[in-house]
Amino acid sequence: MKKTDVFQNLINKKIGELHFDKSPRELYEPMEYALTMGGKRIRPLLTLLACDMFGEIAEKAIPAALAIEVFHNFTLVHDDIMDVAPLRRGKETVYKKWNPNIGILSGDAMLAKAFEILLDSDKTQLKDLVQLLSKVAIEVCEGQQLDMNFEHIEQVSIPEYLEMIRLKTAVLVGSALLAGAIVANASAKDRDAIYKFGENLGIAFQLKDDILDVFGDEDKFGKKKGGDIVAKKKTYLYLKAHELAKGKTLNTLIYYFVNSTFDEEAKISEISAIYKQLKVKEAAEKQMNVYWQKALVHFKKIDLPEKNKKQLFEIAEKLMVREF
Amino acid sequence: MKKTDVFQNLINKKIGELHFDKSPRELYEPMEYALTMGGKRIRPLLTLLACDMFGEIAEKAIPAALAIEVFHNFTLVHDDIMDVAPLRRGKETVYKKWNPNIGILSGDAMLAKAFEILLDSDKTQLKDLVQLLSKVAIEVCEGQQLDMNFEHIEQVSIPEYLEMIRLKTAVLVGSALLAGAIVANASAKDRDAIYKFGENLGIAFQLKDDILDVFGDEDKFGKKKGGDIVAKKKTYLYLKAHELAKGKTLNTLIYYFVNSTFDEEAKISEISAIYKQLKVKEAAEKQMNVYWQKALVHFKKIDLPEKNKKQLFEIAEKLMVREF
Repeated sequence: MKKTDVFQNLINKKIGELHFDKSPRELYEPMEYALTMGGKRIRPLLTLLACDMFGEIAEKAIPAALAIEVFHNFTLVHDDIMDVAPLRRGKETVYKKWNPNIGILSGDAMLAKAFEILLDSDKTQLKDLVQLLSKVAIEVCEGQQLDMNFEHIEQVSIPEYLEMIRLKTAVLVGSALLAGAIVANASAKDRDAIYKFGENLGIAFQLKDDILDVFGDEDKFGKKKGGDIVAKKKTYLYLKAHELAKGKTLNTLIYYFVNSTFDEEAKISEISAIYKQLKVKEAAEKQMNVYWQKALVHFKKIDLPEKNKKQLFEIAEKLMVREF
Repeated sequence: MKKTDVFQNLINKKIGELHFDKSPRELYEPMEYALTMGGKRIRPLLTLLACDMFGEIAEKAIPAALAIEVFHNFTLVHDDIMDVAPLRRGKETVYKKWNPNIGILSGDAMLAKAFEILLDSDKTQLKDLVQLLSKVAIEVCEGQQLDMNFEHIEQVSIPEYLEMIRLKTAVLVGSALLAGAIVANASAKDRDAIYKFGENLGIAFQLKDDILDVFGDEDKFGKKKGGDIVAKKKTYLYLKAHELAKGKTLNTLIYYFVNSTFDEEAKISEISAIYKQLKVKEAAEKQMNVYWQKALVHFKKIDLPEKNKKQLFEIAEKLMVREF
């Protein structure tokens, strides 16, 4: 069996061993549901791969990996309330299946639980790990707040958008890798390099996500095409189109983007046509590549033989082409 | 200046020094607002008093004290959303002043911030303190969930109610004291004793709160009388009355308690009359005293000269008579 498969099995096994068979059921059942509704466990996998890469037994990074995954799922539970999103991965979201109060409270308990899980780490690394988790938690909240702010701001610049996805998505990718490096007692320089690798990878990953939402293969991607357009998300594609469009095209873009009275299909097809016309997919791919290249620069700085770095590199590449 | 005043000034000064002058403002402003809308700082004061009592410089317990206070205020921000409570301490609650999403998110950031603040503690005590905070955070969520469940359950027993207030309120009082004892490196026996003292004090304190809601001096207590009755809270008073009432009295009690069509004053006066008739105030005071006596048993177990324990004892007594 491949190492990544071994690690993912280990993660799923350990998540299954978290004790959610407690009372009150109205609190613990949603926590368990949120954690087992079919995530790909990318972040905890990155933690284990980083730990392994730096020469430490990956199992030692399990508390950090689980804490990151529980934290990530907490953000999804609360984001779904804020975004009024009834479905995730084809299943009802927690607030929809139960109610918003249960979503708030079980999310809160998951955030606390993430810190509790960290306590199983080696005592000498606990401070660094608590620092990492509390820092990234606050940053992700900042990112989500910016994302919410953008809904009500007409003019969002591309640099502002990139900063938002850095905070909302990318810092957690960096932190997942850094957590593994901390457990493996990697040097300060290597920690810095792997964090920045992850951060840039995370931004590239989100840009890819923006592209796939409109131009992806529905079956492969597993999401309905054009979801961001319907949800009026100001993605990179939209912001770039808004920047490039002039005259009638700009008016049409805004008209279709803002208006909710059209049927979804018409809206998606009109806006996609403008995206194609303005070649924003190509612009997004270029931007994505800039971040991927930045990620690679930092990856190269990690002071390890190339062969040790191969496994993590392969997973990162897979994430970029989204075979994952 | 009295020691308690010195400590409270110190707490307020340190809360003022937490950095909320950050961006996005929509996240940090509500956090600052929630923390400075006029709490009495009872919990962090208990932390400093406990630390001082065990012979350590109280200032060393500031990170733990602030973490407890930030955590406590996080619970208020989220509880107010769940309870749809527009006012707290006479001011608009966060979700009301901004909106529920901002309430959710700024609350989340406060919970993460509480853990971040703990990082300023001595490294040797960090594990115990993170353990304490994550444990109490989960327990408080359990308590809040039970409280929400009770809204929809017709028959709540008094033991169930006492367990709910233990989790929702009392464990945090115990934890505030325990945090101070941890910082002062108190013995395991003393830690256990002061925690249990606080836990029982916390239950007694909440029973006092239930009594004051109906029978308190409005000016002194600073809350509108009968708020629990209007909010249909199944307090100790209500549950005891429900237990004791028979026939017509029971029907009247349920009729007025459940019905929302009456004007508030009529509702409060009818239900208060039944409470008086059934002497539930006296029953609640008796129950409160049971917990206060339990608290004192544990307080006596703390292995320190009586004179060292005087200050904390005085504050606890004040809390019980509610001159605080």
